[in-house]
Amino acid sequence: MNRRFLAAVLAGGLLWSASVPSRADEGMWLYSDPPVKILKQRYGFEPGAAWMEHLQKSSVRFNSGGSGSFVSSRGLVMTNHHVGAEQIAKLSSPGKDLLEAGYLANSQAQELKCPDLELNVLMTLEDVTARVQGSVKSEMDAAAAEKARRAEMSTIEKESTEKTGLRSDVVTLYQGGRYHLYCYKKYTDVRLVFAPEQDIAFFGGDTDNFEFPRYDLDVTFFRAYENGQPARIEHFLKWSPTGPREGELVFVSGHPGNTQRLNTMADLAFQRDRRLPLVLNLLRRLEVLYATYGERTQENKRQSKDDLFGVQNSRKALLGRLGGLQDPAFMGAKQKLEDELRQAVAGSPEWSAAFAQVEQAIDVYGQILDDLYLYERHYAFNSRLFELAQHLARYRVEVGQPNTDRLREYRDSNLESLQQDLFSPAPIYPEFERVKLADSLAMLLEVRGSDDPLVQRILAGKSPRERAAELVNGTRLQDVAERKRLAESGGTGSKDPMVELALLVDPTARKVRKTYDEKVAEPLRQAYAAIAQARFAKFGTELAPDATFTLRLSFGVVKGYLEDGQAVGAFTDFAGLYRRSAEHHNEYPFRLPKRWVERKSRLDLSTPFNFVSTADIIGGNSGSPTVNREGQVVGLIFDGNIQSLVLDYAYSEVQARATSVDSRAITEALRKVYDAGALADELGS
Amino acid sequence: MNRRFLAAVLAGGLLWSASVPSRADEGMWLYSDPPVKILKQRYGFEPGAAWMEHLQKSSVRFNSGGSGSFVSSRGLVMTNHHVGAEQIAKLSSPGKDLLEAGYLANSQAQELKCPDLELNVLMTLEDVTARVQGSVKSEMDAAAAEKARRAEMSTIEKESTEKTGLRSDVVTLYQGGRYHLYCYKKYTDVRLVFAPEQDIAFFGGDTDNFEFPRYDLDVTFFRAYENGQPARIEHFLKWSPTGPREGELVFVSGHPGNTQRLNTMADLAFQRDRRLPLVLNLLRRLEVLYATYGERTQENKRQSKDDLFGVQNSRKALLGRLGGLQDPAFMGAKQKLEDELRQAVAGSPEWSAAFAQVEQAIDVYGQILDDLYLYERHYAFNSRLFELAQHLARYRVEVGQPNTDRLREYRDSNLESLQQDLFSPAPIYPEFERVKLADSLAMLLEVRGSDDPLVQRILAGKSPRERAAELVNGTRLQDVAERKRLAESGGTGSKDPMVELALLVDPTARKVRKTYDEKVAEPLRQAYAAIAQARFAKFGTELAPDATFTLRLSFGVVKGYLEDGQAVGAFTDFAGLYRRSAEHHNEYPFRLPKRWVERKSRLDLSTPFNFVSTADIIGGNSGSPTVNREGQVVGLIFDGNIQSLVLDYAYSEVQARATSVDSRAITEALRKVYDAGALADELGS
Repeated sequence: MNRRFLAAVLAGGLLWSASVPSRADEGMWLYSDPPVKILKQRYGFEPGAAWMEHLQKSSVRFNSGGSGSFVSSRGLVMTNHHVGAEQIAKLSSPGKDLLEAGYLANSQAQELKCPDLELNVLMTLEDVTARVQGSVKSEMDAAAAEKARRAEMSTIEKESTEKTGLRSDVVTLYQGGRYHLYCYKKYTDVRLVFAPEQDIAFFGGDTDNFEFPRYDLDVTFFRAYENGQPARIEHFLKWSPTGPREGELVFVSGHPGNTQRLNTMADLAFQRDRRLPLVLNLLRRLEVLYATYGERTQENKRQSKDDLFGVQNSRKALLGRLGGLQDPAFMGAKQKLEDELRQAVAGSPEWSAAFAQVEQAIDVYGQILDDLYLYERHYAFNSRLFELAQHLARYRVEVGQPNTDRLREYRDSNLESLQQDLFSPAPIYPEFERVKLADSLAMLLEVRGSDDPLVQRILAGKSPRERAAELVNGTRLQDVAERKRLAESGGTGSKDPMVELALLVDPTARKVRKTYDEKVAEPLRQAYAAIAQARFAKFGTELAPDATFTLRLSFGVVKGYLEDGQAVGAFTDFAGLYRRSAEHHNEYPFRLPKRWVERKSRLDLSTPFNFVSTADIIGGNSGSPTVNREGQVVGLIFDGNIQSLVLDYAYSEVQARATSVDSRAITEALRKVYDAGALADELGS
Repeated sequence: MNRRFLAAVLAGGLLWSASVPSRADEGMWLYSDPPVKILKQRYGFEPGAAWMEHLQKSSVRFNSGGSGSFVSSRGLVMTNHHVGAEQIAKLSSPGKDLLEAGYLANSQAQELKCPDLELNVLMTLEDVTARVQGSVKSEMDAAAAEKARRAEMSTIEKESTEKTGLRSDVVTLYQGGRYHLYCYKKYTDVRLVFAPEQDIAFFGGDTDNFEFPRYDLDVTFFRAYENGQPARIEHFLKWSPTGPREGELVFVSGHPGNTQRLNTMADLAFQRDRRLPLVLNLLRRLEVLYATYGERTQENKRQSKDDLFGVQNSRKALLGRLGGLQDPAFMGAKQKLEDELRQAVAGSPEWSAAFAQVEQAIDVYGQILDDLYLYERHYAFNSRLFELAQHLARYRVEVGQPNTDRLREYRDSNLESLQQDLFSPAPIYPEFERVKLADSLAMLLEVRGSDDPLVQRILAGKSPRERAAELVNGTRLQDVAERKRLAESGGTGSKDPMVELALLVDPTARKVRKTYDEKVAEPLRQAYAAIAQARFAKFGTELAPDATFTLRLSFGVVKGYLEDGQAVGAFTDFAGLYRRSAEHHNEYPFRLPKRWVERKSRLDLSTPFNFVSTADIIGGNSGSPTVNREGQVVGLIFDGNIQSLVLDYAYSEVQARATSVDSRAITEALRKVYDAGALADELGS
């Protein structure tokens, strides 16, 4: 990773477009404001309203944090294996490991119902900026402004839900420069149709993750159901018979999670010096813990491998981001842009003040950082049972309050999703829970020290190991019925030890949450809204907002790149897969599933397998369809290369690339490796 | 690990002998003061002077940090594979991985010379307490006292070296309560005779490390040479034809590295809250780094696996220690003993003051902890090339000073060992160096921040990755001749970028070292000497001193234990090895070497493989012979169980066990798996 990453950052400031108006193929564009002019000028392509609507309504959001698309009229949804993996793990049991073995439903009856998956499809979107901003009066301080805005957003969401029956979210764009109301059709009955073996879906494992060339069949198919039957879908994507060509214009429609391209230097420095190192140290701790737990027995490995994968993936991604921030060339380029902007707005006190406001908020953020992660984001209680207990401890209290006064996740618009999570029948593994909780309690003790009164009450005179065992053995929260009972009756007064712990921690957790919401998030929101406006004023409006896990359209061309002076081609093929496996003696994580070994001779080894394009994507885009001008599926986004990891903070098209599975590889594998001809036939039909 | 460990600590205070006079089989005894009375009373055994001398002179210290023993008249030395692994790795090269493949020299000519291994055999020991303590005058402050004592120790060592030609070390015992002069015969021409494959030597890997039941052939044989011929050895251990019996008294003669059983609560709390968490976080960081580096290619794995093993081993050991310290039952028992002692010495101002002195020193330690690890113990420069550069930057300066004024490692008595290390031809891997150095520079940047002037000079305006590449690509220190040239000419004025970096860091490193030596180590030494005296006064002299990586005698019985109410037997056998491998589908780290699979039918599967005893051991004892009353080898110490990991701070014989390879397994494997009949014949002959 080092050498390859280096080549990108060495090139320095010139490559980084940072936050000036879009050059090249930058931009995760709003469907309400697509880059029509750029596409026409650069590619001679004009997407019409029908083209946009079709792609919009074919796009699916995985509420667990990923993207997908409808690919048949009968509700077939395509996404990545790694997006579906959480559900696939939950559908597994001892002796029946679907992650390892893969799964194919040969009939509708064999399609497996996911315990707690919600899919969203964006049906309508509406600008409600005036209404949200109008709720804030000039005499309000930050806390009051935040409350007023929150109240207005809740009201809008509630009215819309009542009117349309759709999931309605007010989305903050341009850091508060604009607010849009997004209404989603929800699917909560979702069933597993096909998943390949993890060994081919995540071939190369952590080693090849974020690298290219790449050889992964990172695909899974689910089916959305309504009223117990496959959903009838009007808008779905057709399958391209030819796949993409080198140099071809392609589009990516999906839900990029989060970018910080407008962030000021003070914010970036805080990310670099405090937040990313903190999170990375937590991730390393978890990585070692999960790896050692998994190595003890095959069953342990089955229980923990999805968590381990998640941790390794985050570690590698954040290390890439941190590497960018630790590079003076990158930071110098960002500094230069900020200096220019500051100079341009020097005469506007409100805009100038925004930079200081960011610094103040970041200062508070630094003071509460540890508590926020330990108590509110419960890194001190790394346990699914605690997570449930915290919800139960809050549930009745929050739901008993006016909708607008509740914590965001308890508002009416979020309640159904919360309940699905809270009452999920997904299995919980007591031994894994004990190990995770013991280690996180030990970490709390290390960070806060044994003299801390709250720590003493949390540990109750016991060692972290003993206390974790007592809590996990004593709780009844693994029982869904018990959770329902507690949610109804309210957690208060419960004798469940895990709920008692959550109640003990709750005042501290709520306090830091409140400080974060009022003294960090809200001032930052306001300051970035001002900065976004200043940027509009200086650079015009040809600028996409930062990603917010809402539907966006990116575009780019299929194109290789130069690395250390060597050309990296845009495509790999099946032949390369077999070569790469042999280089590593077919050992994990380069081990091929048995089926792939046996059926090698059936395959056309020249079939394109993975390819790269210049489309501007980020985490959350996983599972997005890659489509051509005709709106046909030519690929399936599943990763970006190492050089793309700093796209969080600034776009570059010199080396940063989005990686897709080629549509031709998917059908070739379905037919010849998995005997899934019926599924292949259904695609796009 | 959790459940098993828990059972030990739950039992609470009663089990922990802590620092009261020896009960049970506690004690790493001095050869000058063996536990004659206890052995006679408890086991009816009286070791005579000849018995003691024979065992003493058969015992071998591996200067790299382990133990061993002579097992033939022709210089054959037995130790653990994991003690020899560093040398075995250095004798390997791309395509010739002796760790993986194992090695057997079929003739003297095939015995492979180790690049930089020093063995020591303790020939004489002498009490020099009066002379060392006499050098300190009552008017001296701590710094002056330390200097005076250091000077006297250097003089004693120098005189002894001149007189005897032996390596002479003044050893601090009872935290300064006593000083002994130990004189060692040194062997620096040491050759590899036999090593099994790492897969069987470390069968079960990190997963089974510190666990029992266990199935490891953790043995390696070297041969000491003198004048180009196998050394003629008078004292060597005979081989037991029968092995050990359940309940039998056994002895362990070896070099336990370090215990802190006299440490005060303030010190233990500091270890728990500051030092161990710091080191563990560093270890986790290295574990993730080495694992990901190794997974990229087979060659990377070969380069890094010994380092990875070392890191994982330390991580698991320190987690066990920290777990003990985080347990209120354990700490409560230690607190009780300290309260008793404090009360007993309340009338003695000097002794009472010692407790406060520990607190003061620990306070300073806390202030310099980060700098000490970053700069002087160079965690910020994790690179063999930097380590060499630091020595070269200091070498001429230090050697140019009077012997007594030098840093300890540059004194005449240590110079030969230092040179062996400094001019070692062992290979250095540039890519691994770059990766390690880049990550540690990034950590420095995280810990100190980018505004730190020294950090800015260290990074020289580059990112950690760039800077590491520049340093590793630019240095010539991989060339031994260049190192010799620089050592002669002095590092100052060198244009080698790595030496320049070491010179840049040196003032900071020396400053923190000085503070540590004068304000932490020396006051602690004095305070613990006083506390040791107080303990003598209260509890008598039947107490072994804390371990100091010098020769000690432990004893115990071969004995299983109860764990979660289940009996754990004292012995495993070869049949169990094959069962354990099958449970894990023969996958790494439970993969059996090909030879072991093929030759299974030749083996007597009922051959005892590993066994446990109550002997009091700790890290550094690895490779120690386990002998019976006749002084015959019945086993080879290679590990302790999970419950033994807190032996650092207090002994318990309820569950804590030392783990040995059974002597019968070694000869059975040599003859039937490795066709090494000649070597088996030589053992003890």
